Amino acid sequence: MAKHLVFYGTIVHSQDIDHVDILENTLILTGEGGVITALERDVPPNQLEEKLKALGLDTGNHELHQLHRAEFLIPGFVDTHNHAPQWAQRGLGRGLQILDWLNQITFKNEAKYADVRYARKAYTQAVKGFLNQGVTTASYYASLHGPATKVLAEICFAEGQRALIGKCNMDRNSPSFYVEQSAQESLAATRDLIDAIKQLDPSVSLIKPILTPRFAISCTDELLRGLGQLAKEDTDLPIQTHFNEAQSEIDTTLSLFPDFTNEVDLYSHFGLLNDRTILAHCCHMTPYETQKFKQLGCGIAHCPVANTTVGGGFMAAPIREFLEQGITKIGLGTDSGGGFSSSILDAMRQAFIVSNAKEMMTGGKDKSLSVDECFYMATLGGAKVCGLDHKVGSFAVGKEFDACLVRTCESGGEGMEWDLDVPLGVMTPIEAGDNPRTIFEKFVMSGDDRNIARVWVKGGCVK
Amino acid sequence: MAKHLVFYGTIVHSQDIDHVDILENTLILTGEGGVITALERDVPPNQLEEKLKALGLDTGNHELHQLHRAEFLIPGFVDTHNHAPQWAQRGLGRGLQILDWLNQITFKNEAKYADVRYARKAYTQAVKGFLNQGVTTASYYASLHGPATKVLAEICFAEGQRALIGKCNMDRNSPSFYVEQSAQESLAATRDLIDAIKQLDPSVSLIKPILTPRFAISCTDELLRGLGQLAKEDTDLPIQTHFNEAQSEIDTTLSLFPDFTNEVDLYSHFGLLNDRTILAHCCHMTPYETQKFKQLGCGIAHCPVANTTVGGGFMAAPIREFLEQGITKIGLGTDSGGGFSSSILDAMRQAFIVSNAKEMMTGGKDKSLSVDECFYMATLGGAKVCGLDHKVGSFAVGKEFDACLVRTCESGGEGMEWDLDVPLGVMTPIEAGDNPRTIFEKFVMSGDDRNIARVWVKGGCVK
Repeated sequence: MAKHLVFYGTIVHSQDIDHVDILENTLILTGEGGVITALERDVPPNQLEEKLKALGLDTGNHELHQLHRAEFLIPGFVDTHNHAPQWAQRGLGRGLQILDWLNQITFKNEAKYADVRYARKAYTQAVKGFLNQGVTTASYYASLHGPATKVLAEICFAEGQRALIGKCNMDRNSPSFYVEQSAQESLAATRDLIDAIKQLDPSVSLIKPILTPRFAISCTDELLRGLGQLAKEDTDLPIQTHFNEAQSEIDTTLSLFPDFTNEVDLYSHFGLLNDRTILAHCCHMTPYETQKFKQLGCGIAHCPVANTTVGGGFMAAPIREFLEQGITKIGLGTDSGGGFSSSILDAMRQAFIVSNAKEMMTGGKDKSLSVDECFYMATLGGAKVCGLDHKVGSFAVGKEFDACLVRTCESGGEGMEWDLDVPLGVMTPIEAGDNPRTIFEKFVMSGDDRNIARVWVKGGCVK
Repeated sequence: MAKHLVFYGTIVHSQDIDHVDILENTLILTGEGGVITALERDVPPNQLEEKLKALGLDTGNHELHQLHRAEFLIPGFVDTHNHAPQWAQRGLGRGLQILDWLNQITFKNEAKYADVRYARKAYTQAVKGFLNQGVTTASYYASLHGPATKVLAEICFAEGQRALIGKCNMDRNSPSFYVEQSAQESLAATRDLIDAIKQLDPSVSLIKPILTPRFAISCTDELLRGLGQLAKEDTDLPIQTHFNEAQSEIDTTLSLFPDFTNEVDLYSHFGLLNDRTILAHCCHMTPYETQKFKQLGCGIAHCPVANTTVGGGFMAAPIREFLEQGITKIGLGTDSGGGFSSSILDAMRQAFIVSNAKEMMTGGKDKSLSVDECFYMATLGGAKVCGLDHKVGSFAVGKEFDACLVRTCESGGEGMEWDLDVPLGVMTPIEAGDNPRTIFEKFVMSGDDRNIARVWVKGGCVK
């Protein structure tokens, strides 16, 4: 019989977009395959033993983690937009326009992944680095190289990270040293990668392929059409691309596709927009486009760090406007390395900051986001975007256990001194009077990976 | 004879506002009192020994630190606006307007510093926390309590942090549990604190008192007048206050002082604006005010993290506009805990981000800040604001050695593997092809306190 993983303490998660639930004295049980088998709220400490017995647990068949006051569990973070090969270029090229940044910094860097040995080394560091920061699920853009992308899939599977993994499709408007020779070549490599990933994880326990046309600028009509065909043949295959990121990008796109007046019609025409599509950025949206991608059920990867530092601008997705139109399939993306930070905590803080800017720029119409809304995007919203909310993103019986153990202080056990405990890392210290909500907010606004003490994916410990 | 501190390697500092100098193969020597006695650029490795001898150094009288390729020295960071007692409330109250945030979160917290025992514990943690993050100089607002503020001064002096330390003056419009009973009481406590700090460090080797009217809202005319008188009597005494932070704050201020139409005239009238004054925020500026404080020589503490998260808005100082008018006495402030982060690195990144927003909001007129400009504000600019640029802020013979040793990777010594070294913390890894400028930018955009391996103030190691 499999050993159960059992936690007793505070768990924090989103039930919906605007409310974070803080459940105290909660018992959570994980069984076979990392599936949550019980979640009982408000269990008084003196009834814990009895309750465990009633659930069929006795010493020997379970591992009980009793959380102290300065610890709590949160769902693992979901990074809905992440360029794995840009791990080693994070933060470079500040001040460059998006297309210049691609040409001067990014393509040169991604070209290195032609070397599978280099890719293995870099991707191992990246995947471990994201797990270390509590990213239990990531939607990855790899480089254009099939072999290196297979390596990324192997590493995610081996390290235990849940991931959507795609190789970039790009057969034009890219430098000669970093471009695919034809649509046929690109499609063949894509098919090959899909097969390889399915073979690696046939039950889709952790990893899944994703179609990844980099953006329309770098794809011929033939390539986009071929990818649309793949999406039609396999109705379980997700799709991701960059969408309405910057005005210069939109202008270039529409000049290349003169039959279209907007990107939603363009990608839709090629069969690439449906409820499995993840659209990164969505900064410049017309009402028509917002309505159309709402109807199509696309998910939004909001990347506030990148949107305020790359691309020579400051323009992020109008999240409040989306929410008011009933669109809640919204997650956060680090967009690492367009985003200089690889932390979803930083993405949450920057989402809050850009929403303050939006409130000001709309004369108070688009109210800023709350801490609760940002946390939703970082967890449950992200899971929806990746088509994984039936499995992860929050804690519920039947879902799989993807979680971070947040630890805010050095001590916290018996005999601890509760007035102003010594914080782990640089986070705000916890004080005697702090309630769980205050402790949660201190973590969200000032914590970092040092406060993510342990991480589990599908019940398996990965940190 | 005192032991010399000697470094050989790359040093990075600002010569002026828009240019970071990266000096390779540089020898820097520190002698008595932490004063830099030699700085020699471009010393080839094979001439190092000879050069040391020529400088009178032989084994025994010096400690040589040879920096490896992934290490460099920078000047210590200067935090020009820091509320020491808010250390344990960083990040709380997001979404509240500034005056609500003061009443609901801040005053209750600061009131705790009536207890000197609590103050000692909290301030020790705060000062160590800032030193750990490379803040070698801070301009502190303490609480209103004289005794606790003396404790803060003792701790800065004992831990070796350079600091301006003031107790808040506030004799009205504050809650009954956190207000001074009269202008006389406030002034007496201020005089007493000034004396105590001067006694503690008579040669002003590290610490110095600073007049700290919290803001005009919390000060009666009599109190402001009395503080102006103190500033007149002691022409070495710096002054700090909050200035044009938020529209609601400005409106309230002017309604309390109906004789004035702007804050520059108000504070100037009471004798509080001169070239020793540090004005925090300066978000809403009329051309008249900008001209006037330029003439007066006031320094600006730019606090982009706080300005985009507290106060229900998104409005930071128009730095580009200031620079174009020849105002370069500008530093960065964490404004911890109005700012959720206690890191000057975060302040630099947010300064860059808000400058992108300003560029957009001014239709391209106010160009965004460069990495170099942000680094200047974090170091030399901050030193100017604190009236300490003759001593610190950059490396030069005759200045005192306040520095951080930046270490970007785990290894870096002999036998290191240079293609993609394992980074310390979460920072972007260093690669074989990275030049010193790239390594510097990776640190600025993605490093944290884990990459600040050692810290010195006045030649003394404080981390």
